[in-house]
Amino acid sequence: MATRSNFKIPKIPEMTIRRLSVYARCLIQLEEDGVKTISSQELAERFNLNSAQVRKDLAHFGEFGVRGIGYYVSGLKAELQRILGLDREWQVALVGFGNLGSALFNYKGFGKAGFKISAIFDDDPKKIGRTIDEVPVLSLADLGREAKARNLQIGIIAVPAEFAQAVMETLVASGIKAILNFAPARLKVHKDVRVKHVDLSIELETLSFYLAQGIR
Amino acid sequence: MATRSNFKIPKIPEMTIRRLSVYARCLIQLEEDGVKTISSQELAERFNLNSAQVRKDLAHFGEFGVRGIGYYVSGLKAELQRILGLDREWQVALVGFGNLGSALFNYKGFGKAGFKISAIFDDDPKKIGRTIDEVPVLSLADLGREAKARNLQIGIIAVPAEFAQAVMETLVASGIKAILNFAPARLKVHKDVRVKHVDLSIELETLSFYLAQGIR
Repeated sequence: MATRSNFKIPKIPEMTIRRLSVYARCLIQLEEDGVKTISSQELAERFNLNSAQVRKDLAHFGEFGVRGIGYYVSGLKAELQRILGLDREWQVALVGFGNLGSALFNYKGFGKAGFKISAIFDDDPKKIGRTIDEVPVLSLADLGREAKARNLQIGIIAVPAEFAQAVMETLVASGIKAILNFAPARLKVHKDVRVKHVDLSIELETLSFYLAQGIR
Repeated sequence: MATRSNFKIPKIPEMTIRRLSVYARCLIQLEEDGVKTISSQELAERFNLNSAQVRKDLAHFGEFGVRGIGYYVSGLKAELQRILGLDREWQVALVGFGNLGSALFNYKGFGKAGFKISAIFDDDPKKIGRTIDEVPVLSLADLGREAKARNLQIGIIAVPAEFAQAVMETLVASGIKAILNFAPARLKVHKDVRVKHVDLSIELETLSFYLAQGIR
């Protein structure tokens, strides 16, 4: 398997990155099941993927398949995790600790994938000063200073829409360049910052499109 | 503006549908601001969209622009809402009422877009029988019967991963064909059912990809 450690990655479609996440999960599952090697066809069949797509997506990053053998499960898994930045722990700031913030804090998937929420920020005096599973709830007013002092790298915005832009500005000013935004607000984004919007209504709207059109 | 009421929609890329949702919101905003007509260029500039993309996306559904005028804001908004099935109210079953379920129930965006959570299902006896904002919390054991009796059309799965497949089977058996799944589980999907997976880790993983690659 070719590993290309300092290989400069050209512009990759975001859907490819999302699929790499899915492939990495499939490989973790296969490794747990004791599978050592797998062809792209077998991989596709087992997880309802498209084998040509798998090959094309992986080709952006190197040549991983071995003729007559397929992919080495553990090797490919490790390589994808490295590419996705999942071979390390990222320190995450969670901003907003209402129902959604609590749900996100308790979301098992984040920790498993190497994302550690290491500080929570809120403006409710009843919440500030508490510690949840060893993670402190800090004052929103201290977000800028604390995010810098704690070297947080990723911010999750789970505040009401009207506060989202200000929170983002503060996160960016404190050096955070990767933000996951759950607030239903269109944010003005700085060009050297990556913001992912999770808009839960849009997911429902694509479903209602199919219901409305009678296409299943 | 051409409206094509029973125009059979061919296979539309899902990203197009997602963008239609975004355009519909932009138009709502413009209407609130008193804007009557707008060109695709102005629309694109104001909301950071791509004007060629806007025209291409809309072209799937008809010809909405008028030469020398652009789009009629209210008319195009209404048309997009009709296409997206947002011109009616959909009855939604929320399955799972932990932190995530509560956050989803309180998520303002759903109601605004015409999605009414009209029944909640859980297996916790302390929750069953309660009423939250006039919405009953029902027993998970009654999901199939109640979903049918209440004519629920969309299901939201917010249960732990290990229960997700069984919940989906029950929803499908009771006639629900559109499902939004938040459980971190790959579900086997029936071919006449639309399931959207919301995997919150994947969103973070695409961010960590960019951080890891140093591409901003």
